[in-house]
Amino acid sequence: MARIVVKFGGTSMANIERIRNSARHVKREIEAGNEVAVVVSAMSGKTNELVGWVNEASPLHDAREYDAIVASGEQVTAGLMAIVLSEMGIQSRSYSGWQVPIYTDDSHGAARITDIDPTELNERMSNGWVPVITGFQGISTKNNRVTTLGRGGSDTSAVAVAAAVGADRCDIYTDVDGVYTTDPRIVPKAQRMTKISFEEMLEMASLGAKVLMIRSVEMAMAHKVRLTVRSSFDDPDAPQIAPDGTPGVPGTLVCDEEEIMEKQIVSGVTLAKAEAKITLRAVKDSPGVAAAIFGTLADKGIIVDMIVQNISDDGATTDITFTVPDSEYDKAVKALENNGGRFEYARLSGSKGGAKVSVVGVGMRSHAGVASSMFKALADKGINIQLITTSEIKTSVLIDEEYAELAVRALHTYYGLDKKDA
Amino acid sequence: MARIVVKFGGTSMANIERIRNSARHVKREIEAGNEVAVVVSAMSGKTNELVGWVNEASPLHDAREYDAIVASGEQVTAGLMAIVLSEMGIQSRSYSGWQVPIYTDDSHGAARITDIDPTELNERMSNGWVPVITGFQGISTKNNRVTTLGRGGSDTSAVAVAAAVGADRCDIYTDVDGVYTTDPRIVPKAQRMTKISFEEMLEMASLGAKVLMIRSVEMAMAHKVRLTVRSSFDDPDAPQIAPDGTPGVPGTLVCDEEEIMEKQIVSGVTLAKAEAKITLRAVKDSPGVAAAIFGTLADKGIIVDMIVQNISDDGATTDITFTVPDSEYDKAVKALENNGGRFEYARLSGSKGGAKVSVVGVGMRSHAGVASSMFKALADKGINIQLITTSEIKTSVLIDEEYAELAVRALHTYYGLDKKDA
Repeated sequence: MARIVVKFGGTSMANIERIRNSARHVKREIEAGNEVAVVVSAMSGKTNELVGWVNEASPLHDAREYDAIVASGEQVTAGLMAIVLSEMGIQSRSYSGWQVPIYTDDSHGAARITDIDPTELNERMSNGWVPVITGFQGISTKNNRVTTLGRGGSDTSAVAVAAAVGADRCDIYTDVDGVYTTDPRIVPKAQRMTKISFEEMLEMASLGAKVLMIRSVEMAMAHKVRLTVRSSFDDPDAPQIAPDGTPGVPGTLVCDEEEIMEKQIVSGVTLAKAEAKITLRAVKDSPGVAAAIFGTLADKGIIVDMIVQNISDDGATTDITFTVPDSEYDKAVKALENNGGRFEYARLSGSKGGAKVSVVGVGMRSHAGVASSMFKALADKGINIQLITTSEIKTSVLIDEEYAELAVRALHTYYGLDKKDA
Repeated sequence: MARIVVKFGGTSMANIERIRNSARHVKREIEAGNEVAVVVSAMSGKTNELVGWVNEASPLHDAREYDAIVASGEQVTAGLMAIVLSEMGIQSRSYSGWQVPIYTDDSHGAARITDIDPTELNERMSNGWVPVITGFQGISTKNNRVTTLGRGGSDTSAVAVAAAVGADRCDIYTDVDGVYTTDPRIVPKAQRMTKISFEEMLEMASLGAKVLMIRSVEMAMAHKVRLTVRSSFDDPDAPQIAPDGTPGVPGTLVCDEEEIMEKQIVSGVTLAKAEAKITLRAVKDSPGVAAAIFGTLADKGIIVDMIVQNISDDGATTDITFTVPDSEYDKAVKALENNGGRFEYARLSGSKGGAKVSVVGVGMRSHAGVASSMFKALADKGINIQLITTSEIKTSVLIDEEYAELAVRALHTYYGLDKKDA
């Protein structure tokens, strides 16, 4: 017997037929003798509709009213799921965030869960009930009003509930069937992973593999909640087989590194396009100059991705290069040029249309030379590298967007990630 | 300065433009120096959509889940109204029923309000805030779950809030501009009333004038809450003129009889069509026989309207005639014929296609002969009367449906209700 928290996303709750299919996954787990709690998103499109109304009512609205309105979508799906489960003979009831309660801070629209009282959920689950909980929301301990966690927050709700009730696993049912070694639309030989570590998933998520919200992975890692990513569109009654062919969850398990026996040097290749590069030449180097530059951009709400700094030719100034989204390029250049004397530089150059290609893998930690092998693999295809950044388990390069797919495919093959039978 | 609770129905909250127009009515009251609380319905059509999903999920659903789901519609409109009011410079916040709190019993789907804690509302209102409260719902004191009051319950919510905060008036904004002396589609000369007593409104409501929910009128009468029925589609900035041309609320005031100086003998004429008549001849008269007959029908969920009982020719048995909706006629006849020996009668006869025409007026109490004058007015038009029932302030007759409109027009003219200038 295991205790499982399952979460269904918007496409899995889009209508009664989809809800019924999702409920059959719950039924399978209950019949296997497990204890189950369910966390649900709103019907797909519903949250957008509600947000649209809020913005139409007033672009400058009170975030507390935004939350009161937008939180209603999950109440509907939680109730419907409880009804469908009951009809299948499974004892079930719905809970709004404030009924659990799921306590948050009062950062309305982007609240953080501070505590969950598991008493009621534990009691229900140990008596064979399936509590169905609204994702994406809670109640502020400060003002007793409904809060929402920000878009995609239902994943975070699910992980937090799983941590609170001490679940053995948190199954995230979505419209993809797992995490792939790279985007299968670019590399048809991409493989579905059986396991991936939290650290790798974090890098993958932040690098553009939009399967899980970063916050939910961070929280899962912090509380050691084992996550699976799986499809609610699978036949609920099919045998449960993991991607590697062994019995298990038909999806990807995101877990502690310890659980992964054979570590690949590189687990996945990710791609982010439309990155613009900006270089400031001969920046007068003084303490706080980087803070001044990036503070100027942050003030304009521009998010900077890769940052590289080098000593300049003359040894007294420095060259700083960084990337921003293509769409922010003009705004960023303007902000830097009119910086009000916060910093000085000789020349500004830059261009749009870059692509960031990264290889991710916890195995890098114990393998020297991943970066150099990556550069060689790209050089063999005649791909020029414009920027390089590295972290403990990731190496990223910026290249011309034209070469993006070629680079991803080359690296995927080079690191032995291609599907064998494809 | 007055304290006013205003309620907006579904058509007044149907979209942001409509909500904005409704909010302008609130603004006018605030600018006139009044204290205002708002009670809102869900967007028109929204509750039906939610109920549709519930029934699709399972026709035999838990009423508590029904309530959790269906209550979400008003949360959306309450939040939107608070945002729109804030944008107009009026301090406002939304409250769900459970936040006020509005306490109810635990009859989910048809709950009754047991108590409202006015502390928070009073404090807000006296500080110039406009609290916006979800209509139609509350929280059960027994199980701490969200309850709904049954369809049209927002009127009841508004009256209950008005009673709790000691409001001087409860303005029900709807898509009609008041209560008419009869249906203007039948009688173009129908007049909008300036005032009508609670008792008359109750009779009008139960006789087919579907402007206000009966429960809300009963509650208003019990707590002496003055109600107005007015249109949210009116220009919010137009001068406030009552139907009689005096300054006041542009709509109909439903109030205590005491407030109405000049009492009409007849205030209104109402019509209910598709009434079927059933007569049981020579019913063996014994104590409890009426209870047995109408109990048999109640067991089948058949609602009986008019009931007339007479001594039969032989003096030892009795004739009983009553009406049911046309749609229930066959079911009713079958139930009576197969009554399992609960009562005995000689013959059953009946027919569909009746129309009940009623005249209502508190003035009847002090005027003899209203019934006979009514019968004469109908006889003058050659209309045959099949059944007669009377109450203190109402006289109803059942006639052939063919003559329904003719009868209504004749009585409307006869009692001097026709608009003078039309």
